[in-house]
This record gives sequence, C-alpha cells and structure tokens, in this order.
Amino acid sequence: MEELRGKKVLITGGLGFIGSNLARALVELGAEVLLVDSLIPDYGGNLLNIQDIRERVRINIADIRDKHSMDWLVQGQDYIFNLAGQVSHLDSMQDPYTDLEINCRSQLSLLEACRHHNPEVKIVYASTRQIYGIPDYLPVDEKHLLHPTDVNGINKMAGEWYHILYHNVYGLRTASLRLTNTYGPRQLMKHNRQGFIGWFIRLAIDGQEIQIYGDGKQKRDLNYVDDVVQAFLLAAVREEANGQVFNLGGPEPVNLIEIALLLKEICPACSYKLVPFPNDIKRIDIGDYYADYKKIKNTLGWEPTIAPRQGLERTVDYYQQYKEYYWS
Amino acid sequence: MEELRGKKVLITGGLGFIGSNLARALVELGAEVLLVDSLIPDYGGNLLNIQDIRERVRINIADIRDKHSMDWLVQGQDYIFNLAGQVSHLDSMQDPYTDLEINCRSQLSLLEACRHHNPEVKIVYASTRQIYGIPDYLPVDEKHLLHPTDVNGINKMAGEWYHILYHNVYGLRTASLRLTNTYGPRQLMKHNRQGFIGWFIRLAIDGQEIQIYGDGKQKRDLNYVDDVVQAFLLAAVREEANGQVFNLGGPEPVNLIEIALLLKEICPACSYKLVPFPNDIKRIDIGDYYADYKKIKNTLGWEPTIAPRQGLERTVDYYQQYKEYYWS
Repeated sequence: MEELRGKKVLITGGLGFIGSNLARALVELGAEVLLVDSLIPDYGGNLLNIQDIRERVRINIADIRDKHSMDWLVQGQDYIFNLAGQVSHLDSMQDPYTDLEINCRSQLSLLEACRHHNPEVKIVYASTRQIYGIPDYLPVDEKHLLHPTDVNGINKMAGEWYHILYHNVYGLRTASLRLTNTYGPRQLMKHNRQGFIGWFIRLAIDGQEIQIYGDGKQKRDLNYVDDVVQAFLLAAVREEANGQVFNLGGPEPVNLIEIALLLKEICPACSYKLVPFPNDIKRIDIGDYYADYKKIKNTLGWEPTIAPRQGLERTVDYYQQYKEYYWS
Repeated sequence: MEELRGKKVLITGGLGFIGSNLARALVELGAEVLLVDSLIPDYGGNLLNIQDIRERVRINIADIRDKHSMDWLVQGQDYIFNLAGQVSHLDSMQDPYTDLEINCRSQLSLLEACRHHNPEVKIVYASTRQIYGIPDYLPVDEKHLLHPTDVNGINKMAGEWYHILYHNVYGLRTASLRLTNTYGPRQLMKHNRQGFIGWFIRLAIDGQEIQIYGDGKQKRDLNYVDDVVQAFLLAAVREEANGQVFNLGGPEPVNLIEIALLLKEICPACSYKLVPFPNDIKRIDIGDYYADYKKIKNTLGWEPTIAPRQGLERTVDYYQQYKEYYWS
C-alpha cells in the first residue's frame, strides 16, 4: 500500500459508513484525501464519522448528481473510490427515479467526467450482492446470473456495468467490488431502511427486542468494515483488478437467529422474536445468500479476517461510546 | 390469436419498423390499435409505414419520456407492446444520457403508470441480444451471463429487468423478447447507425459496394420481421410467457459475406468488399452471435419460418417499390 503515500484520492460518499472508514485508512497511509458527500439526511453521510481526522482530510459537500461539480472534482485525482449511492432497497421501490438518478445517471456522468478530464485515474466502484437476486446456488460466485429482485439491484447492476464498459471501451482503469452485508462503526443507525444488521445492533445496545422476519434461518455473510476497506485498497493499487468484478464475502455464513444470539451474548439485556415478513420486504427478499470470494482471494490475496463475534463486539463498543452521534 | 379481436392494444414505437408490422397484423386480427410514437427524425418512426392501414388505427404522437401523456395513454388498454427505444449502439456511446432516459427512465415510468392505472394489462417488451455482449459460448441461451459491450446494451438490460421485476413484485403480466437481427419491410434505411442489415440491403438495391468490416466471417442470425411479429403476438396471448425472457433466433446462422452474396444474387449490380473495422465500431462489436431459441419454441411453440434468401427477396421487393419513402 506504500504507493498510496502522497497520492490524491477522492471518495464519493466519503462521509458515509464505508467511505469514512476508508478515509481513515488512507490518511494513515499518507494519501491526500478529498471527501465528497451530499449529506442527504436519510442517507449515510455524517460529519461525526470523520471527527477525529477532520484536520487531515478535505471535505467538499456536493451531490454526485451535480454533474458540473463532479466534472471539476475528478480532475487531478489519482484514485477515486466511488461509494456514493442510494442503498435502501425499500426506498428504491417507493421512489425508483431517485435511485435511477443516483445509481445510474450519476455513475455515467462520473465516468464521462473521468474519460474527458482524467483518463489516467483508477476507479473502484462499490457494487452489491443485491444484483444477483435470489441465488440459484450457494455460495454465489461471479459466474452466477444477475437477476435482481428490486429496483436498487437493477440500477446498481447497470452502474457496475458502466464501469466495466468504460474500462473495455475507453481503457479507464476501473474495478467493481460486490459487497455483501457490511457492518461496523460509522454505519447509519437512524432508521432500518438500509439493511438489518445496523438495526439489530442498535436494538441490542438499547436492550430491546430484535424482530426477525420469517423463520430466522436466512443465511448471510457478514463483512466487518475494516476487511472491506482492505479490499478497496487492494483493488485500487493492483493492476490485475482493472476491468474486473469481485465478490466480497464473510468468514462463515451465519443465520439471523445466530446473529441475534451473538448480540445477546454481548448485550444480555436484549432479546429476539420471530415475526412474519411484512409484505413489502418479503417480495424483495433474497432468501439465503453467501458469496464465494475465491476470485478476489486468488487475484488480490484478499480474505475476510474478522469473525462475526469479534466484529460485533467492536461495533457495539463503538456505538456505546458514540451513540449520541448516530441514534437520531 | 382469436382472443385479440376487439381488444385494445397500444404499441409504443408504433410507427417504427417492428411496431408498424405488428400493427398491420393486429388490425387483421380485429384489434383496436393505438400507435404511440415520437417521430424523432433519426429514429425508426415513419408515417408512411402505416399508410395502407391509416384509417384502421389511431395515432398519438407522444414521446415515451413524456410521463404524463403515458400515464393517460396506458389506461384501458388490454395489451401494450412496448417497442419504443433508442436502438443505435453507436449513438448510445455518443450520448449515453438520452439512451438512459429512453431505455431506462421511460421504461420505469411506463411500468409505474401500468401499476397504478392499469394493473391488469399485459405488456410485451422488446429486448435485445445486445445485452449478452460477446458470447461466452454459441448458440447463446437465456442462461448465458449478461455482459453488454455498450451503453445501449446496459440500459436495455436494466429496461428488461424492470419489466420482470414488476411482474415478480407487483404481479404485472410482462414478458420480454430478446430480439436478434430483425430485418424486412419498413425498417429505417436513412442511415447506418441502427445496425448493418438494413444498410446492406439499401446498398444492394442501389447497386453499390457493401463494405464489410473485418474478415466478414462474423456469424449472425437473421429474423424476418413477420416471424418476430408472430413471437410478439404469442407472448401477448399466452399466460405461460408472464415473467419470462425469451430469445428469438434465426433459421440458421449466416456470416456477413454470405449475406452479401445472397444480396448479390438478388441485386446483381451490387458488390462487396472487406474493409478494416472503424475503431468506434470495433470496440463495441460482439463477434459471432446466434441464439438458442429452444425456450420459446418449447414454451410458446414459436420458431422462425422464413429463410434469409426468401426474406431478403421480399425485403428488396418492398424497398424497390417504396424506396422514395425510406431513402431520405
């Protein structure tokens, strides 16, 4: 990672969950970090996420939909970590157009900006396992068909393919990581529309009842955010990643009840209960999912290192300390 | 097809190539046909395409991007054949935003309109083999991964998946046909940015030299438009098609030199020549492609019936008669 020292790095969605953790790692590595974020209230951006490194990064408040600003901001960057997105599956069904503008149009315009104004830049895109939809087989590898179950999955699929296309056609150095359930410090905890894991952790810390939909046996793979940050850094510095898509994946699949039980060990005051699926969630649910991450392991040497128990403990510790920044 | 008699049918892109041929078949079957088209000059809409059935159809000039008009026009329809699209691969690279607006946003808004104002309607969507990109194997079946080589392919992929999603989540009765090289009467012949086949036919009729890119051995499957119309009608009336995607495919793969030789037999004054690929075309070219169409054959009983020789003769006959309507 030495080659990141002194390099100019832009992170879109840089005040968000993964963006801010990535910023911290990049600052430690000696990079010149510019964080671009729109701070849309219900999304993940939060200035408190970077409170401890505020003097060591530059912040530019701008929306990735703001084409002219982005045209300017990409210039001179050595690396772009492209993490800005609408990430709520439910919101994408309520308002498919906003999801389209952010996850499709803005991706196109970012790539056009780089093609015209900074063709040498390396771009790493945050894609998602949501693009696979309900798995045909497990674990899911990159040869699995894409058949997403919600608008967000479709638009992220297009967003990812624009990145690959701009590599294949224009020679831009792009790579895409298909993230699974990422968790850890600095995640949005204000509402439960960005996935279950943050919400479960919040309820556990507050000693409340965790409601699990269905039979609770849905398998997932969890990635602690530090592992995910490591994958982004590797994809950035390694040329073998160019034009490639990679699954990330967790150390071992766990089901939702197992996650609740782990949280109960850490926060004994909480409890859990199985409840029926709400209809709007059931109809876009993907059932069991866990990834085969052999491709990134073999190509870049990445693998997850932090077990769910350990990661959940660290996460609970963090929020117990900084709860006031995240709960409302 | 008897059940189409007296039914209300809307065709988006209804003045275009496939739309106008479909309109003719539907009028014969006794349907009440409404043609919606924007008549964008460089696209395929042409009022002369429906000159002979003009008194038997209704025409509404509107752009599929015009959400409010579409909200109103979908109401009361029994069937929607959704053919409006930006179809030029080259144009999608020059202006990715227009392609996005037409092939993604407008598809979403049409589906939202149907969900809210006409949830009983049956929709058949015109997708494209372009979404497969460069084939991993031949013939390409519907299990083949989608990895498009141009912006149009990515956006059409998203457009198709919105249709499937609205079936899976909201119960809309939708089906998608992945068209291959369709040719025949009423195709756009003004320029060569909508695929090679119409352009080859035009050059043949004018006794000019057909320029073939590369070694001319690229395989394609050709579908005569009457066969394609038949597939649309079957997908519309058959409930087994709901929520499904189907490849169409030609009677036999032919390479570009073979197509040129067939045209030379029909129009002896023409000739052909191999020339190097222009760079903007080479970088989005898909190489050999032909489809496996077993799924639609087994499910709906469709198969192509018109051989290239026969189809090309009919097409040349048509344009020799109506050339003045199409050449400029």
